[in-house]
Amino acid sequence: MAEALSAAQKAIGDFAPKLVELTDEVLFGDIWERPGLSKRDRSLITVTTLVALYRTDQLGFHLRRALENGLSKDELIEAVTHMAFYTGWPNAMTAITQLKDIVNSGETHR
Amino acid sequence: MAEALSAAQKAIGDFAPKLVELTDEVLFGDIWERPGLSKRDRSLITVTTLVALYRTDQLGFHLRRALENGLSKDELIEAVTHMAFYTGWPNAMTAITQLKDIVNSGETHR
Amino acid sequence: MAEALSAAQKAIGDFAPKLVELTDEVLFGDIWERPGLSKRDRSLITVTTLVALYRTDQLGFHLRRALENGLSKDELIEAVTHMAFYTGWPNAMTAITQLKDIVNSGETHR
Amino acid sequence: MAEALSAAQKAIGDFAPKLVELTDEVLFGDIWERPGLSKRDRSLITVTTLVALYRTDQLGFHLRRALENGLSKDELIEAVTHMAFYTGWPNAMTAITQLKDIVNSGETHR
Amino acid sequence: MAEALSAAQKAIGDFAPKLVELTDEVLFGDIWERPGLSKRDRSLITVTTLVALYRTDQLGFHLRRALENGLSKDELIEAVTHMAFYTGWPNAMTAITQLKDIVNSGETHR
Amino acid sequence: MAEALSAAQKAIGDFAPKLVELTDEVLFGDIWERPGLSKRDRSLITVTTLVALYRTDQLGFHLRRALENGLSKDELIEAVTHMAFYTGWPNAMTAITQLKDIVNSGETHR
Repeated sequence: MAEALSAAQKAIGDFAPKLVELTDEVLFGDIWERPGLSKRDRSLITVTTLVALYRTDQLGFHLRRALENGLSKDELIEAVTHMAFYTGWPNAMTAITQLKDIVNSGETHR
Repeated sequence: MAEALSAAQKAIGDFAPKLVELTDEVLFGDIWERPGLSKRDRSLITVTTLVALYRTDQLGFHLRRALENGLSKDELIEAVTHMAFYTGWPNAMTAITQLKDIVNSGETHR
Repeated sequence: MAEALSAAQKAIGDFAPKLVELTDEVLFGDIWERPGLSKRDRSLITVTTLVALYRTDQLGFHLRRALENGLSKDELIEAVTHMAFYTGWPNAMTAITQLKDIVNSGETHR
Repeated sequence: MAEALSAAQKAIGDFAPKLVELTDEVLFGDIWERPGLSKRDRSLITVTTLVALYRTDQLGFHLRRALENGLSKDELIEAVTHMAFYTGWPNAMTAITQLKDIVNSGETHR
Repeated sequence: MAEALSAAQKAIGDFAPKLVELTDEVLFGDIWERPGLSKRDRSLITVTTLVALYRTDQLGFHLRRALENGLSKDELIEAVTHMAFYTGWPNAMTAITQLKDIVNSGETHR
Repeated sequence: MAEALSAAQKAIGDFAPKLVELTDEVLFGDIWERPGLSKRDRSLITVTTLVALYRTDQLGFHLRRALENGLSKDELIEAVTHMAFYTGWPNAMTAITQLKDIVNSGETHR
């Protein structure tokens, strides 16, 4: 989880230390590491939440992480297609466009 | 999918026939049946979407369906605990309360 | 607009007088009465907003008002069916259920 | 509807074919073409939904489409002014700014 | 904070122990107790968040807590009146109705 | 409040005169000036609402205004850290990033 930690620390480490501590120690250090649900499933529900809530600033980071955590491009496309009916079309369109850009650029967040 | 179809038909079949047709033929008849994602995963993202959007009227139906589609009680509790950080605590509290009631009552939607 | 005024006044008149004044004088007394958009169109966008935002407490009042302002039952059903794609299915299901109950009971808010 | 079809196809046609098929055949090919509500009214509720949900990526496309479907600039301004009370001010401010830019540039999406 | 702890524990203690642990130890035990912001201000922003997001299930608990944390009835009414412009009217109406019921019944959550 | 007035007037004064009139005379001229709640508290709940609703276009303006109305940088950081639990992490991350940029640039909206 070293990349994720340094992402938060680099971005806002000195500015908001308690929020970074919670992000690094509780959210990424504890919750994401719990055995009750696989990282692949955690990525699936995190991406779903961001799509449902139209959290466009955070979606790219977690789509890349989802690909790294074992979700395939095709599973993510299928998930977004399914979600279109529950979140509404606009959310699906924004998500699929961001996913396409990530896949096409071959980007990962490492 | 017979139960789902008749649920929509019984509730609003005569009143909103096009919406029922889309629900039964496109959403449940086509999307939910596509092979690209398991029913278990489709239930996971549907429940996540409903929790994220605080769609309290629809959550019970899809929590029961998720249990039937192979998600365990413990996976759903873990998913809600994870989601608390992305959707906010109130959504998690409402979801866990509905899930507990369903599990305790032994209800399914068949 | 007398009914609307007294609705707000009866409900919270003594408790939140400034909010009631804004509701009665600005929102219902000025905005709803402006000639630039018909009452029928104002009801259509108000209902749409409430469906989109899942404002379940306020939806019934404005569905009844929409019927009084000249939208037919069939137009409202068609609008909800269309909206399902933009707001997501759960919002449409909650809306159509409330509308059906109102139509079946023959209720108006007079 | 040829423009709309090609918009979706050009943007994500090869990448997410089922989502494009649903967009082109069900949403634009069936729903938008149904006689129960005019195109003008469908644009009015679609724009309202996008304003209510702050779907900023999709709003420009549908504001231009609304102007093409017969809503006047003045009706859209009046609708956004009315909506401010139901969606909150920030949504109205974002909508009016996008609409002003579209009207000033004389843009359409053809 | 003993009441709050036992509220979560009584409601879902055995069912979702990690969520209760986070609620009691991190949210109420750490965050709410930090000196950087008064309890009165924390209640003000918590209530505001619940009103903004229309989290109707949780609003009553936090309105009562806000009164206990030193916000007056009149400050809360003024806050809701102000928020109406930023969250939209429906949220303000639901909030003011819940607040009125709490004040009239003389309820607290102890 | 002269700056705020001219902000709305400059941006959309000729284009949407009624919306500007409501913004200047009712929202900023009346509501923000009422004695029942301090400007500092009004800024606190306005910023909270924008963070809760992820109204990214309007957040910068009101964060700067909050600093001018007497909220310290540290109080705003603490408020965002608290809110993370109620709005979800993504909203807090977007807010803290915008706040950091404003503080670092020494910007105000005068």
